[in-house]
Amino acid sequence: MNIEEYVNKLAVGAKEASRGLSHASTTVKDSFLSHLSQSLVESRETLKGANQKDIDAAKDAGLSKAIIDRLLLNDSGIQSMAEGLKTVISLKDPVGEVMEGWRRPNGILIEKVRVPLGVIVIIYESRPDATVEAASLCLKAGNAAILRGGKEAINSNLALYALIKGSLKKAGLDERSIQLVETTDRTAVDYLLKAEGLVDVIIPRGGEGLIRSVAEKSRIPVIKHYKGVCHVYVDEYADLEKAERICYNAKVQRPATCNAMETMLVHEKVAGSFLPRIGKKLQGARVEIRGCPMTRKHLTWAKEATEEDWYAEYLDLILAVRVVPSVVAAIDHIARYGSSHSDAIVTENITHANKFTNEVDSAAVYVNASTRLTDGGQFGMGAEIGISTDKLHARGPMGLKELTSYKYVIHGEGQIRE
Amino acid sequence: MNIEEYVNKLAVGAKEASRGLSHASTTVKDSFLSHLSQSLVESRETLKGANQKDIDAAKDAGLSKAIIDRLLLNDSGIQSMAEGLKTVISLKDPVGEVMEGWRRPNGILIEKVRVPLGVIVIIYESRPDATVEAASLCLKAGNAAILRGGKEAINSNLALYALIKGSLKKAGLDERSIQLVETTDRTAVDYLLKAEGLVDVIIPRGGEGLIRSVAEKSRIPVIKHYKGVCHVYVDEYADLEKAERICYNAKVQRPATCNAMETMLVHEKVAGSFLPRIGKKLQGARVEIRGCPMTRKHLTWAKEATEEDWYAEYLDLILAVRVVPSVVAAIDHIARYGSSHSDAIVTENITHANKFTNEVDSAAVYVNASTRLTDGGQFGMGAEIGISTDKLHARGPMGLKELTSYKYVIHGEGQIRE
Repeated sequence: MNIEEYVNKLAVGAKEASRGLSHASTTVKDSFLSHLSQSLVESRETLKGANQKDIDAAKDAGLSKAIIDRLLLNDSGIQSMAEGLKTVISLKDPVGEVMEGWRRPNGILIEKVRVPLGVIVIIYESRPDATVEAASLCLKAGNAAILRGGKEAINSNLALYALIKGSLKKAGLDERSIQLVETTDRTAVDYLLKAEGLVDVIIPRGGEGLIRSVAEKSRIPVIKHYKGVCHVYVDEYADLEKAERICYNAKVQRPATCNAMETMLVHEKVAGSFLPRIGKKLQGARVEIRGCPMTRKHLTWAKEATEEDWYAEYLDLILAVRVVPSVVAAIDHIARYGSSHSDAIVTENITHANKFTNEVDSAAVYVNASTRLTDGGQFGMGAEIGISTDKLHARGPMGLKELTSYKYVIHGEGQIRE
Repeated sequence: MNIEEYVNKLAVGAKEASRGLSHASTTVKDSFLSHLSQSLVESRETLKGANQKDIDAAKDAGLSKAIIDRLLLNDSGIQSMAEGLKTVISLKDPVGEVMEGWRRPNGILIEKVRVPLGVIVIIYESRPDATVEAASLCLKAGNAAILRGGKEAINSNLALYALIKGSLKKAGLDERSIQLVETTDRTAVDYLLKAEGLVDVIIPRGGEGLIRSVAEKSRIPVIKHYKGVCHVYVDEYADLEKAERICYNAKVQRPATCNAMETMLVHEKVAGSFLPRIGKKLQGARVEIRGCPMTRKHLTWAKEATEEDWYAEYLDLILAVRVVPSVVAAIDHIARYGSSHSDAIVTENITHANKFTNEVDSAAVYVNASTRLTDGGQFGMGAEIGISTDKLHARGPMGLKELTSYKYVIHGEGQIRE
């Protein structure tokens, strides 16, 4: 197979399919989602069989338990994919929404109408459920999608892709509306990143290395989902009971996620009362603490933090802790070391809260709540394709709306430019 | 001067300045605009003197009359820059707008708040008034800007930059809020395009070559302003009087702009009545017509159109004309040859109008109005930094709002992720 020709065929097919999809009715799009949901459940055994091949290969290749866990497609995983599709059916179709409209002095009526982006390429790693998730969200928002999953999941993805194709057909949609890159050849990605004029946006999901490499090579706009170095700042006016609950949740509830707390900042006036208290709780959850000298006065068992610790995204039960003299110092620390993902202040003081929310430049800024809440589901978007750390186009959790663009539709009666 | 160090200093300075600017009050930002407006008028003679150097150099270098015209800064040009600034003062500050807000079942209040993009790099060609326009729009939207103008305008730009710096100082703003690249060394642009983490977005304005080269080299998101191959389709149900007015305006009123009509599509049923009529009018305005064989039956004096003509952005008094059998054929032609900028249908038939607006994928789609209306001023945005042909982030005319991003501010009372 000539990979360049193959990728070009996918991209041209997606572009053609996207023309019809852009004005496909919600009923037709939901019919696809419904067929897919049903066929996932019906084809459970086939899916598990294909998945077993991936699992065996992963074991033979000596891949880590964490990767094998992510690869696994069992009954409950299949059930939850099928239910996820029903959730997407229940979401409002964003396409066609008149976002704004106004009449100009010369009488023309200008409407700003939500439209699909067009063709979306999603590049992701080994979770096969991402295939169904990406396909469903892109299609509901009227986009054609080209999916490139991790090579470890190729057999699972091919089995899922067969069901996707069947469901597109049943719904009467162009079968090129969703396409899986059926080769694991790495050059396929390089050709996709050069398919200007055919592909409208690239969304890479995965580790920082993958995302950086895609962003550097791509000639097509990329929406990035970089790391989260999230902070909770416990202010001098914090309610320490809230602070304890929030910090514990932000660190411990699911430490491997991008919205987990990586650094805790504590005002010097409450360090003496708060640090021993939260320290004990974190110690109970086996969290390793790396602290500044002031922190280590109160938590003598803590390790010493180095400059690198302030930049670190541990994704693990490790926490950097720094005592700061003021809310300004906390904001400065976040500006310098943070990743503009999710940051929180715990305070009862409204002036400090306002200062923090105004000056911290992150996708999500919290007052008295856990950074773990940055999530499409928690925000009420129903589903998310990821969390953007970009400022252009979409910032924070990306749901259906964030997979759209807009166009201006202008209604006149012969108006011209004078 | 070490260009890399110099550019890095500009970018670091802009990033630092952007932190304060992001929450600068509207009063302070407007005070800058007001001081600048006043100083432009007061320093008229200095500006004209500096501009004369550029004009002389351009003449010595044998540059075209068109370029020299664009370079020229005379009294009326200076006056209109000063008035443009007053218009920007009158525009609503987009920063801080609560775009949406909702409460979740767990009690958290989520607000989506408009914030500046951060640091914007504008790369443009020889018009010195673009310097003031870009500076004023970026700053009003709370962004720091790094401006890189054409080398032909360097003396004019340096003189304007002195006034900008003075006005920033008078307003009490960081002088690094707006910075001009003071060298004409070409490598400066290359370094700017690599300033990831410091610069948030690049906006190139100018010819297609400039924009393509920036888009290919940049590691930072680029908002592109590509060409406009705009169409007017005269439907079988067109009011031919409206069609004549619109087509004439779209082609002749200002042919060198990106929203001028480049190809006219005419339904075969009205070709016999419409083509001689519009042909005569266009001939009177010295428009050269390049037609398909059917067109040339009705306009025997027209030249023969080649395949390249359907793709052409003439920016001149030249028009490609094609007779088509249906609205579907018109839509297909636009999908194949168009540039997704601005396209119009002239029709009295609502089904055809709806089909056209639903299926033509362009930034602005018109029913019975001229494509020349695609413009920030005409749309009521007050001012524009350009017209985006991208689908990501901003599409069509870009005003102040399009120079912003947003963040989520979440107010809680101790909520955590369960």
